[in-house]
Amino acid sequence: MKLVQHPGEMADLSALWRQEGRKIALVPTMGSFHDGHLALMGQARQLGDRVVVSLFVNPIQFGPGEDLAAYPRDLQKDRGLAASVGVDVLYAPSAQEMYPPGFQTTIRVAALAKGLCGASRPGHFDGVCTVVMKLFQQIMPHLAIFGEKDFQQLAVIRRMTRDLDLAVSIIAHPTVREESGLAMSSRNGYLQEGEKEQALCLYRAICFARELVKTSPFPLAAADVCGQIAENINTTPGCVVEYVEIVDADSLESCETINNNSRLILAVTVNRKVRLIDNAGLVEL
Amino acid sequence: MKLVQHPGEMADLSALWRQEGRKIALVPTMGSFHDGHLALMGQARQLGDRVVVSLFVNPIQFGPGEDLAAYPRDLQKDRGLAASVGVDVLYAPSAQEMYPPGFQTTIRVAALAKGLCGASRPGHFDGVCTVVMKLFQQIMPHLAIFGEKDFQQLAVIRRMTRDLDLAVSIIAHPTVREESGLAMSSRNGYLQEGEKEQALCLYRAICFARELVKTSPFPLAAADVCGQIAENINTTPGCVVEYVEIVDADSLESCETINNNSRLILAVTVNRKVRLIDNAGLVEL
Repeated sequence: MKLVQHPGEMADLSALWRQEGRKIALVPTMGSFHDGHLALMGQARQLGDRVVVSLFVNPIQFGPGEDLAAYPRDLQKDRGLAASVGVDVLYAPSAQEMYPPGFQTTIRVAALAKGLCGASRPGHFDGVCTVVMKLFQQIMPHLAIFGEKDFQQLAVIRRMTRDLDLAVSIIAHPTVREESGLAMSSRNGYLQEGEKEQALCLYRAICFARELVKTSPFPLAAADVCGQIAENINTTPGCVVEYVEIVDADSLESCETINNNSRLILAVTVNRKVRLIDNAGLVEL
Repeated sequence: MKLVQHPGEMADLSALWRQEGRKIALVPTMGSFHDGHLALMGQARQLGDRVVVSLFVNPIQFGPGEDLAAYPRDLQKDRGLAASVGVDVLYAPSAQEMYPPGFQTTIRVAALAKGLCGASRPGHFDGVCTVVMKLFQQIMPHLAIFGEKDFQQLAVIRRMTRDLDLAVSIIAHPTVREESGLAMSSRNGYLQEGEKEQALCLYRAICFARELVKTSPFPLAAADVCGQIAENINTTPGCVVEYVEIVDADSLESCETINNNSRLILAVTVNRKVRLIDNAGLVEL
């Protein structure tokens, strides 16, 4: 596996692969790989002739007071993990080369980025869109794989890709969970052992909602379900709901009643320091 | 010459050309071709193996109360003119296909788009950047040619291209002028015969500034030159200055004193209805 650190070198390599007719699959990441990342890389290996994993802790998607400095970084460990699943190139550019002096361009997806995480993290999705566009232009992938764990991000990237006519297929990979049900996340590393139990309140909320949907007569009012979930979470010691919503999976607009395309999506803070998100479809199809 | 009206058809054609190793040159336009457009097309013909001219009156770069509805359109005439200079494809998509329902993505270049025309046309350059990005993704050109007449637009597009790592060379074509010195513009068609004489106040301002620079001892204060130009224009019957500035040609920031990289840039309204712009370097190198 090759480690590439300069945008120009990456672009040259991709141009060569394109000339040779290779299909390029990209997995964009911020590193600190867990089994979720490795599952995405495995899918990329199946779908592409050449697999590029980008590793870049993107400063412009972090707000002031967020965890940019604390975000876990371990290039050597990540390098070994990526190599172990057959990645061809680990692309880890520097912030200086990604955002040189004078940089001033932003991409914004309006409605989809407004609520949910966008409400408490202003500018976050602008930063995500901008870096993903840069990565797409540098790496020129035929397809890119994003985890459903960041469901709003996936919807925003899909929209940007469609709106700006990017010739990249956006592939969603289902959320990978620990045996307990906790969604894998690099930010789980912030949790002490006892806190992992508290963090399960997100997965329990999903199970609760799914069970309710399975056993209740339709139509089922989304606001009632969200209200019960919020109460359950807020009565879990140390857990505070940031948002709990049931939305249409495409528009991310609130549902009045639950239907086949409804998605539960929630953000919770554990012990005032670790912010976790999760989401799931509610109707088994 | 082929007329292409659907984005998918254009993208397929460009992908084929790319496979064949052809160099694609793009001239983005809003139609209503004059000798300025034809000069850009001629340059594209020299630089590219395949020449695409896009013709799209882009609604999102017009503000409320601007001349979107009145903007001159004559596809049949433009078709003949483009064919006469050896264009391969005239690409004229519909607004419905460019901006289908749900479209919500915008590209913004911050500092460069703020002053000058950006001050009186909020959102204008966002619209320009967004459509140029879409055209680049649909047409996949190796190079794109923009007229220096729209100098701020050129600077903004260069910046976007660099910031987002687009693999497109941006080529500037010098402003083409009528024999009188009036910069060619589709909006000159709004001028009655007598008004063309009034509109010459822009070119006279350029000549005045150049002469002053040639004959005055350095350093020459930019504000003094702009002040004199504004007075000359505002005393021309029917002419009102929107802005007159001398800026650095790269950053578009105001110069205190005139240097080799200074550019005079101005916008004037003639008889309260026709808004004209022009610009020029001030030091003969």
